[in-house]
Amino acid sequence: MAWDTERTKRLLLDAATTEFSEHGLAGARVDRIAAAAGVNKERIYQYFGKKDDLFAAVLAHRLRSSMDEVPMLGHGPDAVGDYAGRLFDHHLADGVIPRLVFWEGLERGPATAADAARAAYHGEKVERFRELLPGIDRAAAGELLLTIVSLVNAWPVLGHLDAFLIGGEPAAAADRAARRRAALVESATALAREAIAAGAGASTPREVPAASVDRVAEVQ
Amino acid sequence: MAWDTERTKRLLLDAATTEFSEHGLAGARVDRIAAAAGVNKERIYQYFGKKDDLFAAVLAHRLRSSMDEVPMLGHGPDAVGDYAGRLFDHHLADGVIPRLVFWEGLERGPATAADAARAAYHGEKVERFRELLPGIDRAAAGELLLTIVSLVNAWPVLGHLDAFLIGGEPAAAADRAARRRAALVESATALAREAIAAGAGASTPREVPAASVDRVAEVQ
Repeated sequence: MAWDTERTKRLLLDAATTEFSEHGLAGARVDRIAAAAGVNKERIYQYFGKKDDLFAAVLAHRLRSSMDEVPMLGHGPDAVGDYAGRLFDHHLADGVIPRLVFWEGLERGPATAADAARAAYHGEKVERFRELLPGIDRAAAGELLLTIVSLVNAWPVLGHLDAFLIGGEPAAAADRAARRRAALVESATALAREAIAAGAGASTPREVPAASVDRVAEVQ
Repeated sequence: MAWDTERTKRLLLDAATTEFSEHGLAGARVDRIAAAAGVNKERIYQYFGKKDDLFAAVLAHRLRSSMDEVPMLGHGPDAVGDYAGRLFDHHLADGVIPRLVFWEGLERGPATAADAARAAYHGEKVERFRELLPGIDRAAAGELLLTIVSLVNAWPVLGHLDAFLIGGEPAAAADRAARRRAALVESATALAREAIAAGAGASTPREVPAASVDRVAEVQ
């Protein structure tokens, strides 16, 4: 029987995702990943390289899927709020992206910063995000997207802070998630409205083509 | 010569802060902490208990200091923005709180959630924060404080995402921090304004005493 390479890679990626989400990069054990996948450890090095490269492959794969599963739709502040809400839902159901993103920041930020494929992925994401808010410049779009991504990813990781700061009577977890979601949607919508207003105030006619101004006006 | 207990505890806390910030909880080595402090390892167990308890002591100490060093001053949306900006400055200069907060979330969230002293600390922080925005309820204050704390702590940890999403020409790090600070201050101010407006719209006269309404009106 020939090796089914794609299936083996998939088993390894799945096992590695679980291991990295739980233990981070330094704490992850390649032995455990191989054992959980039921695959010889040598395959990991053959297909993905060293542990650090496997971590990069896991997160890149996961993020690329999330971009397909959470499309950016429509225009204007409500479209930004809608996107933030669906991204929150996705990452909460996914369960591992928020943890992987913060493990990455803590353990391999500089290595990631040098990753050309990741740079291309995030660059594409900012450009798509700008289409939600015609007329705002790349810097303002980047700041707002960074704010949304930070909040969406931080919440599942900082559950203990949520409990401390929200407090009150014990609530069902799903109920609390729904309330945090609503707060994030409102916040993202309000910040998008501010960004549009600041962009319209700061821009010269040359910077904002008439077509873009019309599109902004339509959605308000 | 008698043991100088306070000095020894201080040396151990300092060494533990560096070790936990760099390696997290699971990755930290009690041996390295003792060696860096120049103190016998047995003192750690004697003064702080096990490694997990030492982590809790390190972060509790650091957070308590930050509350004294970053007071909440004034009233109204601009006071919230001002607080967010000073908290950003503090945590950036401190260098370890953001990392410790996310290591904690990833590695010992449930243990922290059961920590009565931390609950008291955060409860006090929310009550102080409410004084910045008279008239808004505890839930709305908690959401906004959680948003600010999440953004301030996430930024230093997610430096690689910042580089990807903001991109453009290479900028001096200090210059980029100043621009992110300005964006956070603006965002916190705008969200505080929204929270006040929502609170004024949703509240019945019984929920918002006349004195609070007057104070809100003063700062707008």
